[in-house]
Amino acid sequence: MKFVKNDQTAVFALGGLGEIGKNTYGVQFQDEIILIDAGIKFPEDELLGIDYVIPDYTYIVQNQDKIKGLFITHGHEDHIGGIPYLLREANIPIYAGKFAMGLIRNKLDEHGLLRTAKLNIIQEDDIIKFRKTSVSFFRTTHSIPNSYGVVVKTPPGNIVQTGDFKFDFTPIGEPADLTKMAEIGKEGVLCLLSDSTNSEIPGFTMSESVVEGSINEIFGRSNGRLIFATFASNIYRLQQVVSAAVKHNRKVAVFGRSMESAIKLGQELGYIQAPKETFIEANQINRLPAQDVTILCTGSQGEPMAALSRIANGTHRQIQIIPGDTVVFSSSPIPGNNVSVSRTINKLYRAGAEVIHGKLSNIHTSGHGSQEEQKLMLRLMNPKYFMPIHGEYRMLKEHTKLAIECDVEPEHTFVMDNGDVLALGKDNASIAGKIPSGAIYVDGSGIGDIGNIVLRDRRILSQEGLVMVVVSINMKEFKIAAGPDIISRGFVYMRESEDLINEAQKMVSTHLNKVMERKTTQWSEIKNEITDTIAPFLYEKTKRRPMVLPIIMEV
Amino acid sequence: MKFVKNDQTAVFALGGLGEIGKNTYGVQFQDEIILIDAGIKFPEDELLGIDYVIPDYTYIVQNQDKIKGLFITHGHEDHIGGIPYLLREANIPIYAGKFAMGLIRNKLDEHGLLRTAKLNIIQEDDIIKFRKTSVSFFRTTHSIPNSYGVVVKTPPGNIVQTGDFKFDFTPIGEPADLTKMAEIGKEGVLCLLSDSTNSEIPGFTMSESVVEGSINEIFGRSNGRLIFATFASNIYRLQQVVSAAVKHNRKVAVFGRSMESAIKLGQELGYIQAPKETFIEANQINRLPAQDVTILCTGSQGEPMAALSRIANGTHRQIQIIPGDTVVFSSSPIPGNNVSVSRTINKLYRAGAEVIHGKLSNIHTSGHGSQEEQKLMLRLMNPKYFMPIHGEYRMLKEHTKLAIECDVEPEHTFVMDNGDVLALGKDNASIAGKIPSGAIYVDGSGIGDIGNIVLRDRRILSQEGLVMVVVSINMKEFKIAAGPDIISRGFVYMRESEDLINEAQKMVSTHLNKVMERKTTQWSEIKNEITDTIAPFLYEKTKRRPMVLPIIMEV
Repeated sequence: MKFVKNDQTAVFALGGLGEIGKNTYGVQFQDEIILIDAGIKFPEDELLGIDYVIPDYTYIVQNQDKIKGLFITHGHEDHIGGIPYLLREANIPIYAGKFAMGLIRNKLDEHGLLRTAKLNIIQEDDIIKFRKTSVSFFRTTHSIPNSYGVVVKTPPGNIVQTGDFKFDFTPIGEPADLTKMAEIGKEGVLCLLSDSTNSEIPGFTMSESVVEGSINEIFGRSNGRLIFATFASNIYRLQQVVSAAVKHNRKVAVFGRSMESAIKLGQELGYIQAPKETFIEANQINRLPAQDVTILCTGSQGEPMAALSRIANGTHRQIQIIPGDTVVFSSSPIPGNNVSVSRTINKLYRAGAEVIHGKLSNIHTSGHGSQEEQKLMLRLMNPKYFMPIHGEYRMLKEHTKLAIECDVEPEHTFVMDNGDVLALGKDNASIAGKIPSGAIYVDGSGIGDIGNIVLRDRRILSQEGLVMVVVSINMKEFKIAAGPDIISRGFVYMRESEDLINEAQKMVSTHLNKVMERKTTQWSEIKNEITDTIAPFLYEKTKRRPMVLPIIMEV
Repeated sequence: MKFVKNDQTAVFALGGLGEIGKNTYGVQFQDEIILIDAGIKFPEDELLGIDYVIPDYTYIVQNQDKIKGLFITHGHEDHIGGIPYLLREANIPIYAGKFAMGLIRNKLDEHGLLRTAKLNIIQEDDIIKFRKTSVSFFRTTHSIPNSYGVVVKTPPGNIVQTGDFKFDFTPIGEPADLTKMAEIGKEGVLCLLSDSTNSEIPGFTMSESVVEGSINEIFGRSNGRLIFATFASNIYRLQQVVSAAVKHNRKVAVFGRSMESAIKLGQELGYIQAPKETFIEANQINRLPAQDVTILCTGSQGEPMAALSRIANGTHRQIQIIPGDTVVFSSSPIPGNNVSVSRTINKLYRAGAEVIHGKLSNIHTSGHGSQEEQKLMLRLMNPKYFMPIHGEYRMLKEHTKLAIECDVEPEHTFVMDNGDVLALGKDNASIAGKIPSGAIYVDGSGIGDIGNIVLRDRRILSQEGLVMVVVSINMKEFKIAAGPDIISRGFVYMRESEDLINEAQKMVSTHLNKVMERKTTQWSEIKNEITDTIAPFLYEKTKRRPMVLPIIMEV
């Protein structure tokens, strides 16, 4: 990076700033680059047909000889989902805690990359030393086991990236390592990169232990089957449901592929503990009395193909809702999923289930710390410079206000964009330049082959449909050889609009004959004539503007 | 209605049950039908390209000789938006309060229906008498002036429909008429149809007066321009902003077509009161010091074409964000709009504005009563039978629980679907049958011409795009005369996928020649051959399943 001085450390994000998801950060000192996380983003609805969004990895690929390793803070998709795509371009070593590594292994296996990947499991007290930099960790609390903050030691000073965190003083797993954080702060933090997700929420995030109480209360008063839906990776929540089931003499059946593999991994690593007879097979649930059955399933976000949605739709092979069933959404809808979650709830009610959901039932708590926790992190780390990460722009801005309240100098705070490079010296910091960044769309097996033109076409097609005018022309005799035929998709139901289509066809036909008389050999001219004839006519008749596609064949 | 007895009153909904919006209710005794509201629904995203959803009006049209009138509870779109579509099919008399009628007039004017419409303004103490039934009203509080509940007197008993309501004891406009409601209850209510929107929210909805405090607080501390976005029809909110502007010596400029006409109507009817020099023209805002300017605008739901979105995008002709601007979202996002609202907020922050939004700032309150208010209505009306209306199924279910808590017999409650007919005698009630109902889609000028096939096609096109294989065939000689050409839209960017397309083309070509050798004259066979050749090939190469459209021309 020519715009960073030799005694400065560069900090940048390829993803994770200004938008939720696709967290991918880098810390570089001279020829050593430490990467932190490689996330994926689930696209918003307007990215029609796109499966995932990943960041532009150009900078990483071009500098792969300098990359010392990719360090993973935890195993959520927005922190590990990009790994297969990244590894295909640059096979860099990966360092992750054991739970995250279990998930990464599954993922790499699916993509056929497991054999060649360089995987290193980290323990929280490991220090990974390179020539000029080193990397260490501190234990945090989040909604998945083995969540770590990362400390990158560089000659100008230490860079701390918190990962996702909350401060839960009564967590279900191990508590955050406050002491270590305080020591890191005491040693000195040049720049803190901190999770901004809940920076608009005042106060302190509710403890996971409160959820424990709610779960046990539900188990205590239910006589029918209990169906719990939550994120598969929320192992602590799963363990709470399993523990409550054991306590109330119920068996647990697990539905949904990601839930099954999370439970399996959780058991292997000791995070899910229960007598082995607790878990039953799917086909056993109908042989047990309702009050002995607990079902753990995917679909808490209303995902159309997940187990819970199929149960709600009545299309699940093994589970039909029966009177007395209680369905618990132990989750809150991600913005954008509200409508699909609400629809699932309605269907479950209609099918006859009781449904427990929403904030009021204390059946879910966030994995991210609210304002007071973000301030606690700021006070513990006491950084010289501050860069809010992981959140939308509005959240980064709010987090910056908190940092200033906690005595970070206003001109020492940096609300950056993906691709911006923050150059940090011992006593100076500035946004020094930009590296390539941007969103790459993954659709099917295609990576980056869908651009704005294809998306624009999909948008028009989705809103207005398509009208094709097909005609064969004998270019020697300047005569129509066949057609024009009009074919549409997504525009009107053809059988009920025969008059409209016939009228359009006649119109085009008359026009084309005139064009033929001009003996033009310019196809583009003929195509334009067709479009200019039919588009205004269709708009006048229907007030719709379908994509018009003239197709001419020369015979 | 043959399934309703001669001494029974029928109550039904064509829209408004099980889904938000499109409220359209009917009360029928023998040959007299009273309609209440004719709403429109804004479609969810999956109804690609659909503008509005209206109910099936078949029953109304077939029985228009019996319709005594359409009574409007208030002027929101989900209560009046269907009127132009209904009037085109049956020109029935409309009764509405003066503010709603103002909005209805504008709407009918746009649709060219104003001249022929039969419009009657109602006052709250009017009683509209028919031969066997009569209709009277009671004043409620809602987020728009002139909101009424409706009482339909029928021989078996009185049917009460609350419209949308809250109980605000310190409202900005007139308070609800509790005394009249108590009298109605004392006289006896056979069946109560009550607003279920907030039935999942405990407690009492915050008073509009609290919002007044927040607005004044914002005016007190701002030195820059203040930009308020809210629903145009929320006249009380607009008046509060105008009053605060007057108090703090600011002028008010109004942006957005619906906001301009709401202010105009509000002024005509006396709901918006301010010295006439308070309002300034759009082009005057840049001549005044920032601290003298208030802007009222549309776009609080992130609607892409509204004033605020254009301001946020930097594409508004008259307003660019300048440092010191404060934008206030005096609204909350409707589910489904969260993402677009959030995006607008991010853009405003990026442009340099301060943004105030969300529940925490007390800058908005719901127009619908929460659980305690719904119970208050139940206690005042003390109905024999209860039918929750206006809300999703989950909300109707919750509202029913509240009714039972308020001593309505469980078997006297009816959670119905659109089209269900509740037959009510003096001492009996049951769901007796069904009338035609369903969702009719409005797209452009087409009403009901978009069905599931067109929507399915739009869905496939939006997610995967389209691949056309065009070929001219000489059917006499069984030879390909031209093509096959492959054209795609919304699938891949053709220029970058030439190899893929060329390979597909060769494949189809080879296959077609073989088909020609068979001398088949079955076009469907040829088409199937093309699809069966190219679809698996494209899936293998891209993991996408575009719509494949073989187009054959005979020359």
